[in-house]
Amino acid sequence: MSGQFITFEGPDGAGKTTVLKDMVSIFESQLNNQLVVTREPGGNPISEAIRSIILDKANTKMDRRTEALLYAAARRQHLIEKVIPALDNNQVVFCDRFVDSSIAYQGAGREIGTDAVYQMNLFATEGLLPDLTIYLDVPSEVGIKRIMTHRTDEVNRLDLEALDFHKKVRAAYLDLAQEYPERIKLVDASQDLEQVEKEVQTIITEYLNQHR
Amino acid sequence: MSGQFITFEGPDGAGKTTVLKDMVSIFESQLNNQLVVTREPGGNPISEAIRSIILDKANTKMDRRTEALLYAAARRQHLIEKVIPALDNNQVVFCDRFVDSSIAYQGAGREIGTDAVYQMNLFATEGLLPDLTIYLDVPSEVGIKRIMTHRTDEVNRLDLEALDFHKKVRAAYLDLAQEYPERIKLVDASQDLEQVEKEVQTIITEYLNQHR
Repeated sequence: MSGQFITFEGPDGAGKTTVLKDMVSIFESQLNNQLVVTREPGGNPISEAIRSIILDKANTKMDRRTEALLYAAARRQHLIEKVIPALDNNQVVFCDRFVDSSIAYQGAGREIGTDAVYQMNLFATEGLLPDLTIYLDVPSEVGIKRIMTHRTDEVNRLDLEALDFHKKVRAAYLDLAQEYPERIKLVDASQDLEQVEKEVQTIITEYLNQHR
Repeated sequence: MSGQFITFEGPDGAGKTTVLKDMVSIFESQLNNQLVVTREPGGNPISEAIRSIILDKANTKMDRRTEALLYAAARRQHLIEKVIPALDNNQVVFCDRFVDSSIAYQGAGREIGTDAVYQMNLFATEGLLPDLTIYLDVPSEVGIKRIMTHRTDEVNRLDLEALDFHKKVRAAYLDLAQEYPERIKLVDASQDLEQVEKEVQTIITEYLNQHR
């Protein structure tokens, strides 16, 4: 594989969706049709069907390990159908969330254990990790407040989790950023959006200049 | 948990379905409402929904690791909703296939690797293994011939796999039986059905006499 796999991570309310959208606007012309933007389940029918089981509000009895296995299954299929072909084709992939999200949300947030979730995900990824991860860090109080203010019409199941859940998720992300400093670049997302995006753009530009 | 978890395993054409049905007839009166008979997905809506994705003939692009993760997810939910509550309730559970099937079919048959599939399944089972496994062993030529003779009207996707696949599955079962001789009891299922069932009945009777 010769492309570059760049993921965007962060707890709810970090502004990830906005930042990713604006980075796509900036880099798609630079990269001249070589940018692939995706997120799990990524539009393939198998992963979409898996996702619909996870999100079905009728499935109230779903065990947290069942949920983590389903996320890993959807991830696997998305990797095989979309991410790996793009990397093989020397493209740059911007992916909204990847294994770090499962470690933070299922491993820490739902308390399965971060190492158990990571090890199980290795079965799905066969060890493939992003080349670069933009981690948008935000204090939990700020993140929760942003969700409540801006997204009242589209609050999803995870957004409804308590502040305590958000704190566990963020703590896991901070641990990951400390453990993998080469791969994961932390950006303080409590700053003004303009400053956040300036920093993210600089990190991605420097990375691409070195690797393409 | 205080019940007994007994699984039935074997490659296609070993006669597992018939033997299990007849063992249920024999033991259900003896056990006086304390016998629970099940198989994955086991009737719970989440596992059934997962199973329908696996078996959907439209999903021709399904990666073998996606499939293994989906089997593990369905297994997890079935364990949580049905098997563990029965064992907690001091019942005897007869289960048609369990982790050994994934090791043999996905690990060996589909060549993911038996250890990788076993390790991933530990996430689903948290280490829970059957107390006793009846392994019905049959030479691949005999097994394939029985499938073709007896089940022409209900041949499923796995039955259609080649003799080579069957041989890899059987070899993995034989390795498991050698590795776990205390748990897995091999019965020569190429014998007459009457003799096979006599041996299986003896094994289960001895086990239950010692443990109930």
